[in-house]
Amino acid sequence: MAPPSAIDIRGLTDTEALIYPNPLTVNEVTERRAKAGKLIAGVAAGTSSDLFKSKSNGKLAKRFDHLISEESKSRGTSSLKAAAKFLSTPGIISLGGGLPCSEYFPIQDLSMTVPVAPDFSEEGTRKSGVVVTTGKYDTTQGDGTYDLSICLNYGQGTGSAQLLRFVVEHTEMAHSPPYKDWQCALSVGSTMSLEQAYRIFTERGDYILSEEYTFASAVETALPLGCKFIGIKMDSEGLMPTDMDDILSNWDVKARGARKPHLLYTVPTGQNPSGATQSVERRKELYKVCQKHDVFIIEDEPYYFLQMQPYTGADAPPAAPPASNEEFLRLLVPSLLSLDTDGRVMRLDSFSKVIAPGTRTGWVTASAQIVERFIRHNESSAQNPSGLSAITLYKLLDETWGHDGYLQWLRHLRVEYTARRDALLLACEKFLPKDIITWTPPAAGMFLWLEVDLANHPHAATKSVLEIEDEMFLACVEKGVLLSKGSWFLGDKTKEPTQLFLRATFAAATAEKMEQAIERVGVAVRDAFGVKA
Amino acid sequence: MAPPSAIDIRGLTDTEALIYPNPLTVNEVTERRAKAGKLIAGVAAGTSSDLFKSKSNGKLAKRFDHLISEESKSRGTSSLKAAAKFLSTPGIISLGGGLPCSEYFPIQDLSMTVPVAPDFSEEGTRKSGVVVTTGKYDTTQGDGTYDLSICLNYGQGTGSAQLLRFVVEHTEMAHSPPYKDWQCALSVGSTMSLEQAYRIFTERGDYILSEEYTFASAVETALPLGCKFIGIKMDSEGLMPTDMDDILSNWDVKARGARKPHLLYTVPTGQNPSGATQSVERRKELYKVCQKHDVFIIEDEPYYFLQMQPYTGADAPPAAPPASNEEFLRLLVPSLLSLDTDGRVMRLDSFSKVIAPGTRTGWVTASAQIVERFIRHNESSAQNPSGLSAITLYKLLDETWGHDGYLQWLRHLRVEYTARRDALLLACEKFLPKDIITWTPPAAGMFLWLEVDLANHPHAATKSVLEIEDEMFLACVEKGVLLSKGSWFLGDKTKEPTQLFLRATFAAATAEKMEQAIERVGVAVRDAFGVKA
Repeated sequence: MAPPSAIDIRGLTDTEALIYPNPLTVNEVTERRAKAGKLIAGVAAGTSSDLFKSKSNGKLAKRFDHLISEESKSRGTSSLKAAAKFLSTPGIISLGGGLPCSEYFPIQDLSMTVPVAPDFSEEGTRKSGVVVTTGKYDTTQGDGTYDLSICLNYGQGTGSAQLLRFVVEHTEMAHSPPYKDWQCALSVGSTMSLEQAYRIFTERGDYILSEEYTFASAVETALPLGCKFIGIKMDSEGLMPTDMDDILSNWDVKARGARKPHLLYTVPTGQNPSGATQSVERRKELYKVCQKHDVFIIEDEPYYFLQMQPYTGADAPPAAPPASNEEFLRLLVPSLLSLDTDGRVMRLDSFSKVIAPGTRTGWVTASAQIVERFIRHNESSAQNPSGLSAITLYKLLDETWGHDGYLQWLRHLRVEYTARRDALLLACEKFLPKDIITWTPPAAGMFLWLEVDLANHPHAATKSVLEIEDEMFLACVEKGVLLSKGSWFLGDKTKEPTQLFLRATFAAATAEKMEQAIERVGVAVRDAFGVKA
Repeated sequence: MAPPSAIDIRGLTDTEALIYPNPLTVNEVTERRAKAGKLIAGVAAGTSSDLFKSKSNGKLAKRFDHLISEESKSRGTSSLKAAAKFLSTPGIISLGGGLPCSEYFPIQDLSMTVPVAPDFSEEGTRKSGVVVTTGKYDTTQGDGTYDLSICLNYGQGTGSAQLLRFVVEHTEMAHSPPYKDWQCALSVGSTMSLEQAYRIFTERGDYILSEEYTFASAVETALPLGCKFIGIKMDSEGLMPTDMDDILSNWDVKARGARKPHLLYTVPTGQNPSGATQSVERRKELYKVCQKHDVFIIEDEPYYFLQMQPYTGADAPPAAPPASNEEFLRLLVPSLLSLDTDGRVMRLDSFSKVIAPGTRTGWVTASAQIVERFIRHNESSAQNPSGLSAITLYKLLDETWGHDGYLQWLRHLRVEYTARRDALLLACEKFLPKDIITWTPPAAGMFLWLEVDLANHPHAATKSVLEIEDEMFLACVEKGVLLSKGSWFLGDKTKEPTQLFLRATFAAATAEKMEQAIERVGVAVRDAFGVKA
């Protein structure tokens, strides 16, 4: 057996490394593109991830027909879209589709100033930023790959070929899905992707598995579809596969009034609200339980690239950030997608946390079967991301930064978020009563999860957790700090919480403001518990 | 009684004019804005149409609780969003919401070149277009109303306050809804709005009423939701209210296996595929039938502002286009929304046909009750249009053109589409056999609906309409023209068509290409019927 590979980004054993394909490198993408020649994709051009992927000899994903909803199954292809095949007939004049003529799009060109490596700061952009311009007819009157006449017209349910190419390559570089027929499709953000995922995999009355405390919108999106959440116990590494196995092994259809759950919603990295990140061992264990019970996984990963440097504490020097893009990728915890030999993961990615939420653009990755269901739904709902978002992202990520520059940008965010998190943690260490409030330094994401020990609370015996939580929340507001209540994130709304949590974000306020805020929280908590500083 | 008013844009009788409010004028909007002062709406600011409307003393819309689906009814407000009210506490520091910090949005500024009146052509834009620039902090570091730091962050389910203000004012100017509590909300395009409307108003198993031939996507979107379409007979003015009344009056729940329909999907202006436009009399008659049977109306109006000049024929001079914005508005057929005294219309507007489809931006207008259901759905799906689309539209429509300039742009489109339609009609008159193919010159939209009389077709007795349609479609492709088959647009897929239609668009090809295409169609049709030119 070969010696342990030092460059395996996925923390895999040698045996496992034989199962999972090697990730693609930036250089290989460059070579592949050179070989493929210029990307030609005009107005409403059909496209597919398969055009942009490595040719893999791996096995195909399993089929999941038995888990797909009646609604999703009945989505057919559009007869009008099917007619598009005749458009390639030489010399044909189309009076078919109702695509408006680009001469009526009242934008002639679009320019933006963007940062470039190595100084990605706003100050640096003012000094050394570059101006990127897009014309209306860059592809037909110049040698451009994408232009306003294309992005401002209708598109396909996959989203623009130009941006799709970038995310497919990026996905292969970061996750290298270990089966043959994985694909991506652009989305209008993960909130929408998640609703679509529910509609693909659930019927009214179903239970969805998730972390005990979970993204409130994920629950609020599922409830109108007639689905309930069942929470899995968590520790500092997020959901506990043993508890999930217990729940599924002992599922009582009659008592629950619902079939055994077959869908897991999880945020494995920098989970919202707990900040927990599943280790690679935890992920493998989780995946095995999903295989055992035939559970399909929705891996929602907005914070995947907000993995931070290890926290070294108040008195130790900070850890040196990754010195190269390769090292940066190597330090990332492997995604569930990268471990998904069956094709039972639908991964949701988003540009919201790494570029800007207002782009309303993200993408999904899953087996061809699932992505095709997703695309069919796009066609009769949001269709595809705004063309203005698509071309802005394409121009920035692909033409200006390239994969190399984008990874450098992500490293910039890593350093920035590490500093923000550290500032919040230092404030907590300084101002919070540690016998009452405890926390685990988050390794990823935007959130710190504060557990309040109620043992010595003066009303612990007479008031419910929810009552005390509300008092503490309002006491913090009174002192001038807005936190989030832990109970807002309970997936199972029928259960009374037995623990009290408060969520604080380090994404938004400055270090100075965070210190000020946490000092106030310290006062509010001590007041509530009747203790002195 | 006052003498008939010459400036009533809605073709109303004097008695009716007393019922329906007078439309708002551009000058009144200017005055209102001056009175309201600068619009302050920062990151994820809450907003409401009520801020931007005339104070009306009219009556409130009827409630439609009995028509709202279980799914839609169960959409609650988000607990996290509810906490936003504490953000207005003076001095508060928020560690609550997970909004990323704008310093990590890698776009420093955005510029675009756009046309201005009077020359909106591409040539004119190159000569006299203006450059419009948006900075990242125009609202906080300048006197701007909207900037990149706002549009690139998360927003609300209503969409951006800045763009919402424009569409609310525009809606009031064009439609002046005759009840008090109408509202608008931005959408990611009418395809998505329509899916949301179905989800608000239907349960699985329901029938939806619509024109016999209708927008294929409207049907394809409804089918996976378990809904079927029931077609209403049409004439040259679109759907026939008498037929709709018949269908509803004689509805047999048992025979149909479904409750009596309560939802109408209609495209009143420039209907797709028929090109038909309902006259104001037809609209009033339709509205009465909807009141009689308590039917809620989805008014899908992408082509409303593609109403054209009257067709004067090959030998007459073209009609002079409207000389002013006021005359332009006066010439528009009144919308169903403008006649909607009950609040039983949900109108879908879109920028796709009047600015560009790639903006993926539109809006809905309905009573507060319905718009609130729509916003709740936005919050757990697409959220709101891309911030890049919103700010581009805002900068163009509001800051550069203003309402006056936008109406001039719409007049420009009117003239352009009139010329395109006329070119296609002239080609048809020149090249098509009028004893076989007939058509009504469309008054709006993008489509010409060609009816093929099969009486003298050599296989009329032995082949089905669908077979002959397929042969003719392929014969046209063979000759080098792509048309759309009429049968693609049949709402009721269970019925065999008895008439043969082909749809041609005049939106896409040049006049020269259209002439060439129709000449080829003429040859294909004569070949199929075995007749000579």
